[in-house]
Amino acid sequence: MIEPALYLIPVQLSEGDLAQVLPQANLALVSEIRHFVVENVRSARRFLKKCNRDIDIDSLTFSELNGHTPPEDVAAMLSPLEQGEAVGVISEAGCPAIADPGADLVAIAQQRGMRVKPLVGPSSILMSLMGSGFNGQSFAFVGYLPIDASQRVRKLREMEHRIMHDDQTQIFIETPYRNNSLLADLLKHLPQAMRLCIASDITGAGESIVTHTIKQWSSLHVTLAKVPTIFLLYK
Amino acid sequence: MIEPALYLIPVQLSEGDLAQVLPQANLALVSEIRHFVVENVRSARRFLKKCNRDIDIDSLTFSELNGHTPPEDVAAMLSPLEQGEAVGVISEAGCPAIADPGADLVAIAQQRGMRVKPLVGPSSILMSLMGSGFNGQSFAFVGYLPIDASQRVRKLREMEHRIMHDDQTQIFIETPYRNNSLLADLLKHLPQAMRLCIASDITGAGESIVTHTIKQWSSLHVTLAKVPTIFLLYK
Repeated sequence: MIEPALYLIPVQLSEGDLAQVLPQANLALVSEIRHFVVENVRSARRFLKKCNRDIDIDSLTFSELNGHTPPEDVAAMLSPLEQGEAVGVISEAGCPAIADPGADLVAIAQQRGMRVKPLVGPSSILMSLMGSGFNGQSFAFVGYLPIDASQRVRKLREMEHRIMHDDQTQIFIETPYRNNSLLADLLKHLPQAMRLCIASDITGAGESIVTHTIKQWSSLHVTLAKVPTIFLLYK
Repeated sequence: MIEPALYLIPVQLSEGDLAQVLPQANLALVSEIRHFVVENVRSARRFLKKCNRDIDIDSLTFSELNGHTPPEDVAAMLSPLEQGEAVGVISEAGCPAIADPGADLVAIAQQRGMRVKPLVGPSSILMSLMGSGFNGQSFAFVGYLPIDASQRVRKLREMEHRIMHDDQTQIFIETPYRNNSLLADLLKHLPQAMRLCIASDITGAGESIVTHTIKQWSSLHVTLAKVPTIFLLYK
């Protein structure tokens, strides 16, 4: 019997063998959990089957937690835990509650004094930062940049200030089909000497983590694929 | 034969079975690497033996990279990779180049167009954030707070601003023997309603990730153990 807790279960970022990116212990642990809160039921079922092909999916309960979930429905997802049963949280890719739903549920669990247990798994944000060569003693993840042109330029100025003044690596993401338009904006508005790391398809077959100055990127005329990509800036 | 690259190899944060916190693939991969850049040779050897007890430690090369390494010595650590051989980076605990040495070496590898390959492993920063219930769409890790009392208060004000104005979770660390003195400062200088998550001994036997308001923490009169601890703040 596993300890009753809210288990935060990372999933793989790309196709391939789970043993590449998840500790063996996670795979055993998920087989012991009967109640799940998931971003998407279909992909969560697929993930669980991959962890353990003998798992009896139909005996499990799933609650969906995503952008469409009414906030007032969240707390009830913890009721199995209130009755002493483990609950697992599974997001669509990567680590629950990091640039993904789940944080609200964790906050309620914390309020109620429940035990919360994050597990080890792949984080494209963290792995990009490791591979960038940028400052890992001070860094910020800021999510998506504003779409509006003037707000976007203002955000870039602010990040430039944090890099120069606070010596802080700045990390952000974009919807994959907008990668090229974001890159064009970065090349247009940032200082030539600033370094930009573009990290694509982390842990995938096409993984690429490359750092150049803005000037170098401009001369390379690259086209980014429509794949999940992390952008990092540092002086 | 593994691909020649600079492999960034996370290590466990606490005693115990490696399969709890590292993917099986990492353990196989380290056995194939002959050249290592390590924060501390003794603990790196111990880690490698734990990954594979049949490893022939004496046939491996180790370069030490830490606070005592002259910056001009760093580039030469990549020479095996220039000759087509994989190099592994191992820090004392957690993920290389995140709140740990290694970023300078990665930066040089990036400058030279070498392939950099981060592996999955435990990060106390990321796991604390997952478990805190705080905003994982925007967060900053700021390392250590200033020691000087007035500078420290100024830093707390700045973090308060980033939380309220940018909706950004603030994450920081302290040398374990100063945990209680830091906690006293937080309780003294931060607003009563602000939430503080204290995450200690992540992945260890005494793991604890607890979120309360400053007001609640004040009434609890806790004493923190002298163990590695992550502090997180959010509104």
